Order: sequence, then structure tokens, then C-alpha cells
Amino acid sequence: MAVYTELADEELDAFIRGYDLGALLSVKGIAEGVENSNYLLSTEKGQFILTLYEKRVDPADLPFFLGLMEHLSTRGINCPLPVHDRAGRALGGLAGKPAAIVTFLSGVSVRRPRVDHCGAVGRALAQLHQAADGFALTRPNALSVGGWRPLYEACAGRADEVQAGLSAEIEQELDFLEAHWPRGLPAGVIHADLFPDNVFFLANRLSGLIDFYFACNDMLVYDVGICINAWCFEPDAALNLTKSRALLNGYNAGRRLSPEEVAALPLLARGSALRFLLTRLYDWLTVPEGALVVPKDPIEYYKKLRFHRGVSDARAYGIDP
Amino acid sequence: MAVYTELADEELDAFIRGYDLGALLSVKGIAEGVENSNYLLSTEKGQFILTLYEKRVDPADLPFFLGLMEHLSTRGINCPLPVHDRAGRALGGLAGKPAAIVTFLSGVSVRRPRVDHCGAVGRALAQLHQAADGFALTRPNALSVGGWRPLYEACAGRADEVQAGLSAEIEQELDFLEAHWPRGLPAGVIHADLFPDNVFFLANRLSGLIDFYFACNDMLVYDVGICINAWCFEPDAALNLTKSRALLNGYNAGRRLSPEEVAALPLLARGSALRFLLTRLYDWLTVPEGALVVPKDPIEYYKKLRFHRGVSDARAYGIDP
Repeated sequence: MAVYTELADEELDAFIRGYDLGALLSVKGIAEGVENSNYLLSTEKGQFILTLYEKRVDPADLPFFLGLMEHLSTRGINCPLPVHDRAGRALGGLAGKPAAIVTFLSGVSVRRPRVDHCGAVGRALAQLHQAADGFALTRPNALSVGGWRPLYEACAGRADEVQAGLSAEIEQELDFLEAHWPRGLPAGVIHADLFPDNVFFLANRLSGLIDFYFACNDMLVYDVGICINAWCFEPDAALNLTKSRALLNGYNAGRRLSPEEVAALPLLARGSALRFLLTRLYDWLTVPEGALVVPKDPIEYYKKLRFHRGVSDARAYGIDP
Repeated sequence: MAVYTELADEELDAFIRGYDLGALLSVKGIAEGVENSNYLLSTEKGQFILTLYEKRVDPADLPFFLGLMEHLSTRGINCPLPVHDRAGRALGGLAGKPAAIVTFLSGVSVRRPRVDHCGAVGRALAQLHQAADGFALTRPNALSVGGWRPLYEACAGRADEVQAGLSAEIEQELDFLEAHWPRGLPAGVIHADLFPDNVFFLANRLSGLIDFYFACNDMLVYDVGICINAWCFEPDAALNLTKSRALLNGYNAGRRLSPEEVAALPLLARGSALRFLLTRLYDWLTVPEGALVVPKDPIEYYKKLRFHRGVSDARAYGIDP
């Protein structure tokens, strides 16, 4: 959660006048999204989200993110739709930063997902993967296997501050995953961050997906692994098999995983646990002075990583290999 | 700005069902109010603000705050109106904390007030003072002259960390203000925190007042002094006489200050500068680990205090004594 940039009145007014949204009625900084500053706008035309892209987002990636939301939205995915300004641009500038306005989605994210939520997320993920097909732009996944070692090295000397022995264990894990990472599986655009925060429900039905700022091209089943980690573990770090089975069944109902994808799932879920362990570890060790963000606990993902390491095949997640 | 409490879905749903607001469509933690956690709710009945009262608010004061908003609202002041639950209560409980839902006000607060904004605030303050007349509850001002020395003593040993010599200067100031603080001026309910953050405008007209969580009983002209400090100084800490004249003319148009009140204004403005210097100093020196709040600079109010100390009569603010 973050609001990093204070907006000056005159500048905000001038920015809003560049759009066909009518007068600004209200603006509230909202605690949503770790990477950017987000504001909920009310205007005469309704509610919108204004996002200022802070320094962790590469401006060169913004056409990919905004274009993807537009592509998905026109293909029936309920996600934020970038609003174009009077000159037809989806990307503008405010307070010296890139900025965009997107439509507001109703819905409430769940803190403690139930089995039915997991099933719905599996279905939505398959729909997203299929709707993204044909999107013209590509963006390599900087947080896939090739990106993990540099991230680890940026904080390696201090990993043991978080837990004794963590450095050595991560190094072994990196060696193993780099040697065994699969190739040639079906690939496309993945969300790459479909955590409960980023999924809205209304009356127990999935009503929308948000936060496409990690989306990239990668193996589709890697996204499934991320969702198993994000949705199917209990607070005591044990996998809830009923939830992962529901998620996988939901996914399969929309897009059937191939036998090769199912076989690769344990390794990809393990890799995705390492990815979140590493980014959380980095954030934990480098949280800036005065940050408005409480970093997330890396150890949660260490425990998930250990679970996946002990898995021999995808039956452990509730799907037959 | 603060969102301190993460809400669990089931608990929030149950809480909302206690009100006649229809289904919950959206909930966003908003960066508004330093003392409490605030959430913008969208329900089938419209938009509302949910406030969870965190530990800095004394629950015993909540009937005063909520009752005052209701009193003012029914007397034509555009301020949040507490929503009663199905059992008729304005005050409930959520996540183990006192909680209330109030109506949402449209409007945008200004970061850099202009002269016309200052005039509008003066008028609104006078209207507030008059509308509050007849409110049955009372709440002493814990942050008036009697409260300053204990606050200072809680951080005195460390004031010089912020600026060399600050401790000695505050002590002299306390001695002087305690000896000369006026008595017998017209008193009533004051807002006590009517900063630009707490005043909304729409199309350059003042559209609402929020955040009554410092409201209390005190001399009315003390509130005028607070507003001069909050609205009429430029970023270089110089008073903008045109702004303070506009604010005072606006106030006088609604409720005419007596000659005694005008004569006391320099001292009360000086006292209010010390009050904000002390609370900011305390917060600066005691900001808790992991706080989501960036404390405000106490030195801004040190500079304002020095300005008022050099004032010989109220002409310095643009009003004839």
C-alpha cells in the first residue's frame, strides 16, 4: 500500500481537464498497489483510478501494461480499461511522473480465500491466458529464473539476518532450479502477480482482475504455480489440497493443462515460491527510510518453497500427472 | 495519512449488514486522517466513509465527536453525518475497535490556499461556531495552555535534537503564555484543527468540512488563530497579510469578533503556533517503528511562533484593534 506523491491542486485540475471526464468531485489517495501511487477519482462521469508510476516501474514498459489492459478488456476480461485523453493518449504525465487514468472496478478482495474463490481464480486465470492471445507487444519476465541470482546477490550477504542458514539454502535452490528449469512449454502473456489483493469478488462471484504491472511473457503454467502459492496455503504454511484442486480444476475447465505442463507444475510452483522469497527478502533488507510500506514477510515464501521441494509429482496439488 | 487496520472479509461483511446500506461494492483504505484508519466504502446506497478509531482517540470522546457532526449537519453545516445502524447506534465496533460510518462528502482539499479560499474558510468557521451553539455535550480542550507543559516535558530532553536552543525557547514561551493567557472571552465548540486537508472545495466554493476529532470547547477566537496559522502563511513562513485579512473579514461577516477578541488575537495565534509546534515535536521524536505516517516538520510552527511573538497588535493580521 502506498501513496508516494502529493498532488498540487492546479496541476491535478489541469491534468483532469485533459480528459473528457467532467469536473473533479473528489480525489483520495488509496492504499492499493505497492509499486505506484494510486488515487480514487470521482468526476462528473463516475469513478476512476489515477495511477502515478513511481520509480520502480520502467516507463518503457507502460505501453505494454496499458495496451494489455485494453486488449484484455475488449476481449471480455473485467479489468481496468485505460481512459484516453482528448488527444487520444492512454499515458500522460503528472507531477513529473508518467500517469494514467483507468476505469474503476467494483468488488472487494478477499483476505482469507475459500475453496470457491480458488476455483473462480483458476477459471479467471485460464480466461486471461486465452484472452491475452494475439496481444502484439511482448515483455520478457525479468523475475523468471534468469533474474533470481542477481536479485539474490543484491542481498546475499544479509539473508542470514532474516533466518540463519537462509543464504546457503537459497544458493542450493538457485543451482537446482537453473539446472532443471523447463523449456518449450506453452507460453504467452501471464499476470504474474494474481494475489488475492488483485482479484475482486461481488456476491461471491469473481468480478474483476487488477494490477497488471508485473504482466509479462512466460510459460502459462508458471502463472498457475504463482496462484497456487498465493491462494492455496493456510496461515500455518500448509497446502490446502482442496483449494489447489479447485484452482486447477477451474483452470482446466477454461484451458486444459497438457501432460507436460502438469509434470512441470511442482518445479514451477517451487520456482515461483523462490521468486517471491527473493523479492520479499530484497524489500525486507532494503526498505527505504521513511517508506510508507510495511514489507511483507519473506519467511512465508521460504516455508512454501520447502513444501514444493518435498513434492514428487503434481498429485500433491490435486491433479493427476 | 494512515491505514492501520487490515479488515477481515467476513467481519466487514457482518458489520455492513448491521446497517441499511445494501451490499458492499467496494472498500478502499484511504490516506486521510492521521489518527484513525479510514476506508471509502461503496455500497448499493452510495459512498460512505468507515472510520476505525485507533488508540490515540479516547473512546469516551466519541459520543461528543459523532454527536457534534450530527448537530452541525442538522444545522446546515456540510460535514459528515454519522449513519445509524439498524439498532439506531452511530457508534459500533469492528476488528476490536470502535468504528463508525459517516456520509461521504464530495470536494477536493487545496494544497496551496489562495486569498478567496481563506475568505471562505473564515466564513465557514464563523458558521460552524454559530451552528455548534446549543450542542449539549462538552469536551475540554486537552491541547490548550494547560496541556502544553506536560506535552513539552514528555519530549523536552530531546527538543534540541531538532534545533539547537529550542528547549530554552519553548520554556520561555510556556512561562509567558501561562502567565498571560486570556480568560473570559466568548467560548463554545471549536473545530481546533481546520487545516486545508479538512476543508473541501468544489468549483472554488467551499463544499464541506471534515475531521472533527480535535473538536472541543474553548475560546472561539483561538480557532481563528489556528486557521490563520494553517491557511495564511506562505511556504517561506511569512504571513500573507492579504490572506489573513480575507480570513478575518470572512469570519467577521458571519460572527463579528468583539474588541476584546481582536485584542487577544496575537496572543492566541501565538499560543496555537506553540500548540502545533509541541504536538509535531512530540510526534517527530516519538514516531513509532513501522509507522505508516511521515511526521510533519515542527520547525514550520517554530517559525510561525516567532512571527507572532513579534506582533504588537492585530493590525499585523489585517484587522483594526
